[in-house]
Formats: sequence, structure tokens, C-alpha cells
Amino acid sequence: MSQAKKGLDGVSIGDSRLSLVNGTEGKLVYAGYKIEDLAAYALYEEVVYLLWEGKLPNTTELENLRAAIAADAVVPDEVIALMKTFPEDANAMAVLRTATSALAFYDTDSERYDLDALRRKAIRLTGQVTTLSAAWMRIRKGLEPIAPRTDLNLSANFVYMMTGEEPSSSAVDAINAYMVLLTEHGMNASTFAARVTVSTGSDMHSAIVSAMGTLKGPAHGGANTEAMLQFMEIGEVANVEPWFNENVKTGKKRIMGIGHRVYKALDPRAAVLRERSEALAKASGNTKWFEIADNLAKLARADQYFIERNLYPNVDYFSAIALYTLDIEVDMFTPLFAMSRMAGWTAHVIEQVTSNRLIRPSVDYVGPMDLEWKPIQERE
Amino acid sequence: MSQAKKGLDGVSIGDSRLSLVNGTEGKLVYAGYKIEDLAAYALYEEVVYLLWEGKLPNTTELENLRAAIAADAVVPDEVIALMKTFPEDANAMAVLRTATSALAFYDTDSERYDLDALRRKAIRLTGQVTTLSAAWMRIRKGLEPIAPRTDLNLSANFVYMMTGEEPSSSAVDAINAYMVLLTEHGMNASTFAARVTVSTGSDMHSAIVSAMGTLKGPAHGGANTEAMLQFMEIGEVANVEPWFNENVKTGKKRIMGIGHRVYKALDPRAAVLRERSEALAKASGNTKWFEIADNLAKLARADQYFIERNLYPNVDYFSAIALYTLDIEVDMFTPLFAMSRMAGWTAHVIEQVTSNRLIRPSVDYVGPMDLEWKPIQERE
Repeated sequence: MSQAKKGLDGVSIGDSRLSLVNGTEGKLVYAGYKIEDLAAYALYEEVVYLLWEGKLPNTTELENLRAAIAADAVVPDEVIALMKTFPEDANAMAVLRTATSALAFYDTDSERYDLDALRRKAIRLTGQVTTLSAAWMRIRKGLEPIAPRTDLNLSANFVYMMTGEEPSSSAVDAINAYMVLLTEHGMNASTFAARVTVSTGSDMHSAIVSAMGTLKGPAHGGANTEAMLQFMEIGEVANVEPWFNENVKTGKKRIMGIGHRVYKALDPRAAVLRERSEALAKASGNTKWFEIADNLAKLARADQYFIERNLYPNVDYFSAIALYTLDIEVDMFTPLFAMSRMAGWTAHVIEQVTSNRLIRPSVDYVGPMDLEWKPIQERE
Repeated sequence: MSQAKKGLDGVSIGDSRLSLVNGTEGKLVYAGYKIEDLAAYALYEEVVYLLWEGKLPNTTELENLRAAIAADAVVPDEVIALMKTFPEDANAMAVLRTATSALAFYDTDSERYDLDALRRKAIRLTGQVTTLSAAWMRIRKGLEPIAPRTDLNLSANFVYMMTGEEPSSSAVDAINAYMVLLTEHGMNASTFAARVTVSTGSDMHSAIVSAMGTLKGPAHGGANTEAMLQFMEIGEVANVEPWFNENVKTGKKRIMGIGHRVYKALDPRAAVLRERSEALAKASGNTKWFEIADNLAKLARADQYFIERNLYPNVDYFSAIALYTLDIEVDMFTPLFAMSRMAGWTAHVIEQVTSNRLIRPSVDYVGPMDLEWKPIQERE
């Protein structure tokens, strides 16, 4: 059995109008637009509109979508009450997965499959998952969660709901750019899980819950948390080279956040996030974590092992530095990835439903055959 | 884009020692043993042992596994308390998905990935999901759920936990046979979703939650509920032929529970379940539902459309009759499928972890390219 077959590497599951990931050239395009332009200029809601509608919105269209997401970002009291019973040390992705699953109970569209209902759920869930993420950051500290404001865009609402204070424009700008960069990425494992789930005729909440559980893994969205924990283990800029020699050169550890199934060139999101995280670090007055990450990346880039295998920093590597500098707790990095990816996941769910076929591969049975049943008394 | 490619029809994702599904000949084998023998002679726990260990257990091994599953089937009070806050009319699969997701908070192994921890979680979840299913049947009626007994096997515990009364041997025998027939079935969509989820290094609870959300769809485990609702819509034996002519012959409706992606011959589970459901119906003194189902199946079998497309009743078709005759509420049919499939799902999770590769297919981008960013004021 080839490894490629096991991983379905390069096996296409169909057509999509959402994004192009060109791993050889290190290019990423959302519905025709380069990721570099979107990260520099676009509001998250503008990118959401682009994915859902296939074109950039005009002023009225953008304001309508922004207002709809903000209004629908409210999480039912029942779900907030549930979250207050969760253990404060629960895994943050398990919390997000469970709370999102419970949202279905209070969504009157949850068992509806028409395109209008799917679009309403996409708007609602995109707002609500951001609210759930901010709410959990407060609930687990014993603080009352803060409801979203109808006048803010989603990145501003997230920063506001974390603190209850008027969000600073630099924090909002950084979160917005992060969310834009993470919105969509072809047929990655979590998006694929969402499509497999909905391909049986199941509902959007089920699909998003599958995506979240899949994103949670350290070989996917869990990598941003793992990368930061590794930078913290290194601890000081002076330790980078000894740590690299002792752990990476000897094959004891892999560098979390370096390497990608598809990119064999620099991930274009990593390039943007490197610049962003450097600027954020400088503005914060603490450049230590950026320097640890950047020096480690440079050591790896110069190393024969990494050169031969085309291993470059991926999106999770520098996003860890950006989020840490913004005072996001390390274990919340993956929920932030999830809330950013909501627009992509929901767009793929709608694309799957619009042109559905049950996704059911096969497997090669290699076990025994033709065994004869023996009563239990006769077994050894 | 071919339909087959979209559905990954016949695309193998690797080797498995768990089951062989031969759709052409209508054969199903679990780890070497014919499904007909297992359904006739095996205790559910015997089949669980077979899947997890690759051989049938002796008396001591079987008793050890039975006792471990029964002891671990207890659901933490915190999860029972959560379920009591769920709306009584919530979708039963959304309830099972959410409660199973919450079990992770109280499982000290939830974030452990070693084989011992995975095996402990497989035992625990296999027991707990049965308890959750029975508990919800009571909680939504305002009744206190009943804890599992340590002296019973899982099918007996399920019947006991539904009613609190000493379970009758005929009901236990029927549930046991149902559970054995539904335990495992190759690379079906829910099993595949579990494997995709765990392939990112995510945890077993996440994988099972993905599987449940995927099973929920009417083209998969939701079909047993849909089949029963269709029999109820027909309502009387005399209505079968007019209903068939008006709805199926005209192409207005498909018959739920007839047709299968893989079986192009009679599903061997359907043959066993047809016999079982007939015997149950006769014993209950009400053969109406069996007759409706059986007459409808015969009409379909004689019809050119069904003959040409090799459409036969699948596992969900007669299982609907069996479960209905056992007084299981129609919307609980899919949770019963889920609790039966736990052994298969967990076995596949362990198989995936033991020989893992991230499952990440690709997609053909067919959207626009090279669009130039335009400030919002300049858009139409």
C-alpha cells in the first residue's frame, strides 16, 4: 500500500470555485484574488462575501453582510449556561466542538437543507463561533462573557468580546488580517471532513463539528499551539541553535509549524504573517518570541535536511507569534483558526450540497478469510 | 468531473483487517467470520473482541471484556446533568453528538494517544454511548435515567436502561443480533470521517463525534428512521401498491432503505434482518409493519427500474421494522445504529493511528484567476 494512496495525495474529489492552492509556486488565490492583496486590503467580511457569492461586495452588500453576521453572532443563553458547567481546564477545541454541536438545538434551521437555510446557517455560525471563542476565554476565568455589538465587524467584535473594552485599531487590524489569511485553503483535512459529513445528507452543524474535531489535531490546526509551546520550550534567543542541534539535527524532534503536505515552496500566508508578527512584536516592545521563531526558521532553511525536503514555515508558524503578541492564550490559537475558517468550511458545505455525491472510498481487506465459527468452549 | 471521482468510488485508502464487504456477491465478513454465523451465534462483546483483537475470545477473555464494558458504561453525572438541559424535542443524533463530545471533558485519557489509552477509550466509549442512548430516551420524557448494571452484557444493559425492568431474553436477543449486524462495515462514510479526523493527530472523541455527525444523514444511518417514516406514511398493507405506483413509479419518491453504494446484490444483513423482523412481528401479534415493508420490497424487486440498477433492501430497511416492533421510538433508530457501530469506529481509529498518514485529497479549482483588487468605492 503506497503512502500516497493512504493519504489520498493528489486525488481530486471534484471541482471547486473557492480557492486555488499552488504548492509548487507557493501561491494561494481565493476566488480569483491573490492572498497577498486580500490580507493587505480586505475586511474579513469582504472575503466572506467573496467566498459565498463569488465576487467582491459593493459598499451596501458589505454593510448588509457585516450587520447580519454581527446581529447573528449572539449565542443563545442556554449554550452560554452549558459552557459555564464545562471544566475550566477542558481542552479549548473540545469546548468549541461541544458548544457548536449544542448550537444546533436552538437553531430553527438546523434540520433544513434548502439553500436559503444553508446560507442563514453559514452567517449565523460564522458569527457565533467567534462569540463562543471569546466567551470561553472569559468563562474559564470566572468572568461573565460579553455579547457581540451590532455596530462592529467580526474582528473588532472578537477583540471587544475578549476584554469588554473599546478595541484598539492595531489589534483589530492584526486579527482581521489573521482571519483573512486563515479563511480558506482548498481541500485540507478539516474542510474535507465537513464535506464527507454533509455528503450523507447530514446537516451543517454536524459538518462544522466534524471540521473542528479534525482541525484540532497537531498535524493540522493544532500546529499553531504546538509551535508556540516549542518556542516557549526554547525560551531564549541564545538557546535556538543549541536546541536545534540537540533536538532537530539528532532527529529527536520535528519543528512544529515547518513543512506542509501541499506547499513545497514558501507558504504565501507565512510570508505575510512573518512581516505582520515582526511589526506586532516591535510595536509591543518585546521581540524575543519573533526572534526565536525567525532564527529557528533561518537555521532550518540553511539545513540540508530541510532543503532536500522543501520544508518551509507554514501558516501556523508565524501566526503563533502574532497571536501570542496579541495576548491570546496559547491553547486558544486553534479556536482562532477555527473561527477564521468558518467562512471557508460553510462555503464548502454549500458547494458540496449543491452538487452532492456520497463520499465513500473503499479499503483493501487483508485479514483472514473463511474462518469457521467455533463454540466458545472449544476455543483456546 | 466524473461522479465516481466525486464520491471516491472504488478509491482505496489502504489496508484493513476489520471487514470485507463484497458488494457483487452480497457477502460481509468480520475478521474472517461470515456475518450470518456471527448474527446467529455471537454475543455483541464477542464481535467487539474479534474486531479489536483479531480473534474470537475464550470464556475468560469474553467475560473480562464484558465486565470492562459494563463497568465503564457509566456516564459522568456532569454529562447527564447537561443532557437534562437539552430541549426535549432536540434531534436525537444532535443530542448523541453533543453528549459524546462532552464526555471528553471527563475522560482522563481524552488527550492521550498511546495504544493503551486508545484501547481504554474504545472500551469506555462503546459502553457510554449505549448508556447515552438509553438515557436520552428517558430524559426527554422527564424520567430519571438508569445507570448500567455491572452484571449484564451490553444489549441486556440497553434494554434494562430503557425501562428499569429485568430485560426479557427475546428483546435482548433481538437487540444483540441487531448490534452484531451493525457493528462494522468497511470504509463507509461515517467510519471514513472518523479516520479523516484522527489522521490529523486528533483524539478519539473527536473522531467518534465526526462519525456520528456523518451517520446522521439520510443517505447513511438516518435511512432507518426515514424508512420507518415511509412505512408509516403508507400506513396499511392495502396501500402499498397504490403508494408504489403513485410515488415510486412516477419518480416522485425513492424508497428509503433500498439501494446501496456497494451492494449490487442482496445485503446479507438485510436477509438476516428480514427473518428476524418477521419473527419479532409474529411474536408481537402485529405483523402489519413487516407486511408493508415486505410487500413493498417485493414490488420493487419485480420492477424493471430496480432490477436494472441492482437495487435491493439494505441493512436499514428491515432493521426499521425490527426496532419498531421492539418499541424503540423511530427517531432513536439512528442512535441505535451509532451505539452498535462504536466497536467498528473505534477499531478503525486504532487501525488508522497505528499506521497513520494525514488524509488530504485535492480539488480542481475552476474559479476565476488573476483578478485585480479594486477598492470598494470602485465596485458596482
